[in-house]
Amino acid sequence: MRPPVVLKSGRNFYLVNEFEGELHTHKGIVRLDELKEKRYGDSVTSHLGVEFKILPFSAADFFRLFRKKATPVMPKDIGMIIAHTGLQPDSLILDAGTGSGVTAAYFAYFNKYGEVVTVEKRPEFAEVARENFRMAGLKNIHQIVGDAVEVAEGFKREFDLVFLDMKNDVEMVPVAYRILREAGFLAVYNPYIEQTKAVYERMLEVGFRDVESFELIKVNLEFRRVGTRPFTDIFHTGFIVVGRKI
Amino acid sequence: MRPPVVLKSGRNFYLVNEFEGELHTHKGIVRLDELKEKRYGDSVTSHLGVEFKILPFSAADFFRLFRKKATPVMPKDIGMIIAHTGLQPDSLILDAGTGSGVTAAYFAYFNKYGEVVTVEKRPEFAEVARENFRMAGLKNIHQIVGDAVEVAEGFKREFDLVFLDMKNDVEMVPVAYRILREAGFLAVYNPYIEQTKAVYERMLEVGFRDVESFELIKVNLEFRRVGTRPFTDIFHTGFIVVGRKI
Amino acid sequence: MRPPVVLKSGRNFYLVNEFEGELHTHKGIVRLDELKEKRYGDSVTSHLGVEFKILPFSAADFFRLFRKKATPVMPKDIGMIIAHTGLQPDSLILDAGTGSGVTAAYFAYFNKYGEVVTVEKRPEFAEVARENFRMAGLKNIHQIVGDAVEVAEGFKREFDLVFLDMKNDVEMVPVAYRILREAGFLAVYNPYIEQTKAVYERMLEVGFRDVESFELIKVNLEFRRVGTRPFTDIFHTGFIVVGRKI
Amino acid sequence: MRPPVVLKSGRNFYLVNEFEGELHTHKGIVRLDELKEKRYGDSVTSHLGVEFKILPFSAADFFRLFRKKATPVMPKDIGMIIAHTGLQPDSLILDAGTGSGVTAAYFAYFNKYGEVVTVEKRPEFAEVARENFRMAGLKNIHQIVGDAVEVAEGFKREFDLVFLDMKNDVEMVPVAYRILREAGFLAVYNPYIEQTKAVYERMLEVGFRDVESFELIKVNLEFRRVGTRPFTDIFHTGFIVVGRKI
Repeated sequence: MRPPVVLKSGRNFYLVNEFEGELHTHKGIVRLDELKEKRYGDSVTSHLGVEFKILPFSAADFFRLFRKKATPVMPKDIGMIIAHTGLQPDSLILDAGTGSGVTAAYFAYFNKYGEVVTVEKRPEFAEVARENFRMAGLKNIHQIVGDAVEVAEGFKREFDLVFLDMKNDVEMVPVAYRILREAGFLAVYNPYIEQTKAVYERMLEVGFRDVESFELIKVNLEFRRVGTRPFTDIFHTGFIVVGRKI
Repeated sequence: MRPPVVLKSGRNFYLVNEFEGELHTHKGIVRLDELKEKRYGDSVTSHLGVEFKILPFSAADFFRLFRKKATPVMPKDIGMIIAHTGLQPDSLILDAGTGSGVTAAYFAYFNKYGEVVTVEKRPEFAEVARENFRMAGLKNIHQIVGDAVEVAEGFKREFDLVFLDMKNDVEMVPVAYRILREAGFLAVYNPYIEQTKAVYERMLEVGFRDVESFELIKVNLEFRRVGTRPFTDIFHTGFIVVGRKI
Repeated sequence: MRPPVVLKSGRNFYLVNEFEGELHTHKGIVRLDELKEKRYGDSVTSHLGVEFKILPFSAADFFRLFRKKATPVMPKDIGMIIAHTGLQPDSLILDAGTGSGVTAAYFAYFNKYGEVVTVEKRPEFAEVARENFRMAGLKNIHQIVGDAVEVAEGFKREFDLVFLDMKNDVEMVPVAYRILREAGFLAVYNPYIEQTKAVYERMLEVGFRDVESFELIKVNLEFRRVGTRPFTDIFHTGFIVVGRKI
Repeated sequence: MRPPVVLKSGRNFYLVNEFEGELHTHKGIVRLDELKEKRYGDSVTSHLGVEFKILPFSAADFFRLFRKKATPVMPKDIGMIIAHTGLQPDSLILDAGTGSGVTAAYFAYFNKYGEVVTVEKRPEFAEVARENFRMAGLKNIHQIVGDAVEVAEGFKREFDLVFLDMKNDVEMVPVAYRILREAGFLAVYNPYIEQTKAVYERMLEVGFRDVESFELIKVNLEFRRVGTRPFTDIFHTGFIVVGRKI
């Protein structure tokens, strides 16, 4: 068993990133070095006698377990952006807006040897995300509270990927173009067709190339005794527009 | 401009991973240090006077530009596996079978600080893949020619991810279970429903948990003067079954 | 306003097919000739003083308003069968099994100048369907309670369309072939892939031609102030296999 | 064997609606009473010695065999309109514009005891449709060449269904409202999202109720020795907006 792991007690969960020191919870203190000899499914006990079950962590836990104030981007969509742009794990990524931090956390997790800058205008969302990042033990996220368009004025032309999931994404498109290094990618996520179109057209105007727009639909196959059939949990989540500064 | 870049001359392309030394092609030798001062869209000239245009590289080039003898797994599907399993860039991955090497190359590219072991039974496919890997300059792929089930007998319980895209995937399922470290993932790709079902059921039998089966459908949005409409290039590619050793 | 119309009082509804005589309900008796001078949205009052609102009827009411004991086939699927087979409104149709009677009612409604024979094994379903047909005022449905395979032994080679939505549909396929007139169609509805495959293969064995298998997915477009997006109420309902006796 | 049947010689086909008299073709004259004793798959011979194979007719032949100058509406979409609106076979239908006549022919075929009025602005399309209708032997289609908005000024409030597949469909919406009888339906077919939205909004403004917008996606199931998989011939055809005058 290697970190990170998930400690679960009732409806509380904790992402643990180191197997030394202590984890302070309202259910008591857990000594983390005890985890070293444990296996998934085993338990540890806090000094108050409360049991915590040890579960493996996966990036999907960001989606499932983060406290959420906004609808997060789903793994299928994040995976597509990573695959489409050929993201390398030592990149500089701008994520605007942060929302609850799911996307930034995913990016930070894959981009383990790089950095993620995430910008959010609404302090109450930033606060939720900050707590999520802390709990997840992600060290390579730089969180900024402010208007992304204004904040980005201070950025240099050095980003490998800019990702937008924000209301005024159209306004952000030329800014993204400026701060992307050559051959960098802009990816924009949006649930609505009109705004997707506006982003698409703005990206072409501003100089992006290889601009594409699409959505991914996840269709599950259900195998039951009575037979096999397709079904969807969610059909449409959002459209992705992606383009390149070349 | 940073490596890797793509050099293109007519219908030939070359992935360049270092900006020093020489690139030997049948259209002449290119001095790679010349690339240092260039920009995307510029050209370099071989000693035979042939021009090569400089294009940015992306992982999607594995899919577009590799010589292919088999139908490769598409970026959407690879991205989903990366996102679903929370792949870290310093993992040990088994990819069976290699085919033309697109999936192994993708994994090696994301998993830059880890290793990919890829196994292929058919020597003629392995040869194509070997040439693709060489051209792509990927150093962290270990290629083995042989039957994956037999080859894996020599492997230890240390893989983070096993990916199968092979005929006898059902037979490989218990082997995958054995060589995965705790909390590791098996992901199986298959175009057909019957075999997807057989894999799904075998995974449950063998002890995998959180087993899910699904496909991803990419629906493009086409913005034209006359109006916007959805379309697909390819509807169905394959089903993915993914499960975890917990 | 022309018959049929729907009379609605609270959660009770009544399909009215004639504008003469009386409608006896547990909320009192309605004199139907009063409907002649009314408009949709107007009300009539029973002899007990209960109001009934007058609504237009559509075939979709079979789906929405019938008492249902089984999951009925949806309008999209029935429409496709009608369009694919080129159903004429003076045909002889066999519907097995009846279920709650939605499909039989739809067929009877379109096939106004023809006849529908519907067979159901389970008396409690047949009873529900009988009441639904009575309420809908459909005169061209012949209801038989019994095993469709056995019942069909008494049928002649004269059916234009046989429709199956029943457990042992595979067993019914050769029977359907025998009782179809030349160039008649068999359409089979089934939610599961394995059984759809078994039906498909049996239809080819038995001599059906132009055999096709498919499903229809209804994707809604939602127009809201905030933007337009696709969504589904239900993704998968069932597969249709259709073939012809030629 | 009953009429109509299809006579096929090489790449020429003829819809035959009566088994008496003669069919004059450029490959000679066929005596139609000869068909009475024939079976599907048999042949008849013209006075010039040319063979014509006898095939069953289906409404799908309108789609497959009509001479086409425009992209016709597909059976799945026509079937959905018939099912959704609960079309009765003795209705009065307006179809604008005619195009190649596939939709009008379908409507005329189902609506065997009613009438279809079809309007087309472009004489060259109307001419193709006229020939298609003649060949199909459909007697209950009234063809008008002219602008649908202007032509409809002469119509009374008596249509059960108005169907639009024309460029200026938005302009036609209030006209459709006026000429529909109470509880009648308007159905509009359009490939593009923007125009679908404009139609949807205009229909609400004009007073239509139960307005819905959707598309139907036909997903085929392919059963082959190697396995079963889904595929599409065509993914998106067009959106349907349907509403009711209540």
